[in-house]
Amino acid sequence: MNPQRVEAFSDGVFAIAITLLVLDLAVPTGSETEHDRLAAALGHEWPSYFAYLVSFLVIGIIWVNHHAVFSNVRRVDRLVMFANLALLLVVSAIPFPTRLLAQYLTANGANSHTAAAVYSGTMLAMGSSFSLLWLAITRDAGLLHEHLDPAGSRAALRRFGVGNIVYAITIGLAFVNAIATLAVHAVIALYYCFNQLPLARRRAR
Amino acid sequence: MNPQRVEAFSDGVFAIAITLLVLDLAVPTGSETEHDRLAAALGHEWPSYFAYLVSFLVIGIIWVNHHAVFSNVRRVDRLVMFANLALLLVVSAIPFPTRLLAQYLTANGANSHTAAAVYSGTMLAMGSSFSLLWLAITRDAGLLHEHLDPAGSRAALRRFGVGNIVYAITIGLAFVNAIATLAVHAVIALYYCFNQLPLARRRAR
Amino acid sequence: MNPQRVEAFSDGVFAIAITLLVLDLAVPTGSETEHDRLAAALGHEWPSYFAYLVSFLVIGIIWVNHHAVFSNVRRVDRLVMFANLALLLVVSAIPFPTRLLAQYLTANGANSHTAAAVYSGTMLAMGSSFSLLWLAITRDAGLLHEHLDPAGSRAALRRFGVGNIVYAITIGLAFVNAIATLAVHAVIALYYCFNQLPLARRRAR
Amino acid sequence: MNPQRVEAFSDGVFAIAITLLVLDLAVPTGSETEHDRLAAALGHEWPSYFAYLVSFLVIGIIWVNHHAVFSNVRRVDRLVMFANLALLLVVSAIPFPTRLLAQYLTANGANSHTAAAVYSGTMLAMGSSFSLLWLAITRDAGLLHEHLDPAGSRAALRRFGVGNIVYAITIGLAFVNAIATLAVHAVIALYYCFNQLPLARRRAR
Repeated sequence: MNPQRVEAFSDGVFAIAITLLVLDLAVPTGSETEHDRLAAALGHEWPSYFAYLVSFLVIGIIWVNHHAVFSNVRRVDRLVMFANLALLLVVSAIPFPTRLLAQYLTANGANSHTAAAVYSGTMLAMGSSFSLLWLAITRDAGLLHEHLDPAGSRAALRRFGVGNIVYAITIGLAFVNAIATLAVHAVIALYYCFNQLPLARRRAR
Repeated sequence: MNPQRVEAFSDGVFAIAITLLVLDLAVPTGSETEHDRLAAALGHEWPSYFAYLVSFLVIGIIWVNHHAVFSNVRRVDRLVMFANLALLLVVSAIPFPTRLLAQYLTANGANSHTAAAVYSGTMLAMGSSFSLLWLAITRDAGLLHEHLDPAGSRAALRRFGVGNIVYAITIGLAFVNAIATLAVHAVIALYYCFNQLPLARRRAR
Repeated sequence: MNPQRVEAFSDGVFAIAITLLVLDLAVPTGSETEHDRLAAALGHEWPSYFAYLVSFLVIGIIWVNHHAVFSNVRRVDRLVMFANLALLLVVSAIPFPTRLLAQYLTANGANSHTAAAVYSGTMLAMGSSFSLLWLAITRDAGLLHEHLDPAGSRAALRRFGVGNIVYAITIGLAFVNAIATLAVHAVIALYYCFNQLPLARRRAR
Repeated sequence: MNPQRVEAFSDGVFAIAITLLVLDLAVPTGSETEHDRLAAALGHEWPSYFAYLVSFLVIGIIWVNHHAVFSNVRRVDRLVMFANLALLLVVSAIPFPTRLLAQYLTANGANSHTAAAVYSGTMLAMGSSFSLLWLAITRDAGLLHEHLDPAGSRAALRRFGVGNIVYAITIGLAFVNAIATLAVHAVIALYYCFNQLPLARRRAR
């Protein structure tokens, strides 16, 4: 099967998931904003802007990497199709943990930890399903445009493994401090901005 | 008329419907989550995660099959256009029965049965409109890229017929147990993951 | 400017507008559904299903006609771009009058009339902006793939004129009966299913 | 990297952001609409229609200009990709300040000023990120289809600079009058309808 329609469908899901995030930037209402207090009420909602920014960056980067990976794909088979669908399941679910963490980021006690752990768990699921997609694509040379250097492919897989371990650690961190957890996800996302998939880099040469 | 824009529009509707499902993963609020009870409150919402997963899988599989069918289409006429629009009507409506079943899955008495029957009925409508689309496409060899084996086409139609009978049975099952009904829909969706349209399989060879 | 990206963007807006309609199929909550009354509560919401169906059909048909028109376009200039944007403004707004009419269809007195008049007014705005788009496209032969028969173009314009007069009449009808108004919009949409643009028909030959 | 998928993804985000605006056209409910007062209740919501129209126009024009700019792009590198992602971040966030301003446009005192300042600030962020995208694209002739006239490129940049100064001034205006601020944004948007990017104009010749 031709990868173009898979890419178009995936692009649609990425674009919608990234844009739906805005629905959770809540406008303060009623009693919160009496007596010219809108500015303060908006400032009070910083967790939702912070979570919005991090999740936007995360989805944006997955999209860039999805691109880089699929630019090497000549044809997709059923396994790639379903590995891709698993990734899209996680991506399209990201607005949910974002909303959850935005609401409980500054809550007292265990609630903020729970919300941060769900967020970190979603990132781990995302990293794992991306690794699976990579395995599904690289397992069969017939799916690729050109021969893939086995060393490079293994290096990419090691990178994914490290990434997944880091995500697993952020689940632990969630039980220490929710705000620090979100900050670490922001740093990871920024790191991935500057360190993309080797495959992408090789093609850029 | 050229099938490309029909596919692009359909892909858009599939991608949006599958991503809108996330809006119904509700974040617990207020009194439910006092005293560090967020984890319990989230666990309490398992019906909405279960319904989300099943509906995501269902829309994903319709999309894969839609692809398989349209990869054989050379040109679309008005009948195909409107059969496709009927399928898209059902697909874009799926978030509604999903939300309904998520909310009433564990309700006492007849309400859970009603919600499950609406869900099953939507699946039957989806199966029927897919069958109609298949009939509209295969009725005229001029619409296809290559001659379609009549035996294969009839076999596909028989499969659709069996599928629709199964969906009709799940309407009956809804009045026995709502949770079992949703579980059966999950099983049907998984079955279709591994048993796709003969047409798709033939092309994969 | 190349029409492909205009078509792709328009397809996106059509697909999203048609799919967002589902968000207004409300799930009955709380007190409405005590004592196994979900079936009755759902039946009570027939106006929202009826409005959903009509608006889905309307957007679907505008999309089909938009297709038919753009299949003749070789290049777009700024006027076509903004005429198209005006049409998209109306299309993307359709979920609002749909929601409004669904909620007030069976209200007593003037409220149902107001809601129906807003719905009919939106349809008139849609018809008018489609006519404007047609005028913008056909005013310059250089924008089209092939020479357009002036008689056919004028006939299409007459058809649009008649359509707009009918929509204007439904605004009057709104002040008589809201349900009848929505039913007439359903009939108009079905009529357009079977009587499409002459341009589209000519190309189909 | 090939610009087509970047354009497709951007088109998706533009199309979704422009269509999500409709979700904030609220249907009046309950007590507001007793005694045949729906017409009055709708009239009362003029700020949300006004904000909807201005934001629709703004997103529509950014899309048109995005088109014009990318029609010159032969290939995108990582910097262009992330400059584009920054623009998309602002575009996809526009429904939030729109909702905010619609709700507080006619509020007394400082709240309306705060809301208008947030709206103007978003427009400044949009203008700035568009300027950055332009710089990222024009910094390297290898990214463009044809040699770009340095004078024209600098002229475009001056135009962006003037636009950003105007947006900065509207932040100040917000603290004087919120309604006037929104009206000025409408005028700016209409101005841009008739005065597009020189690049676009040159290609149209």
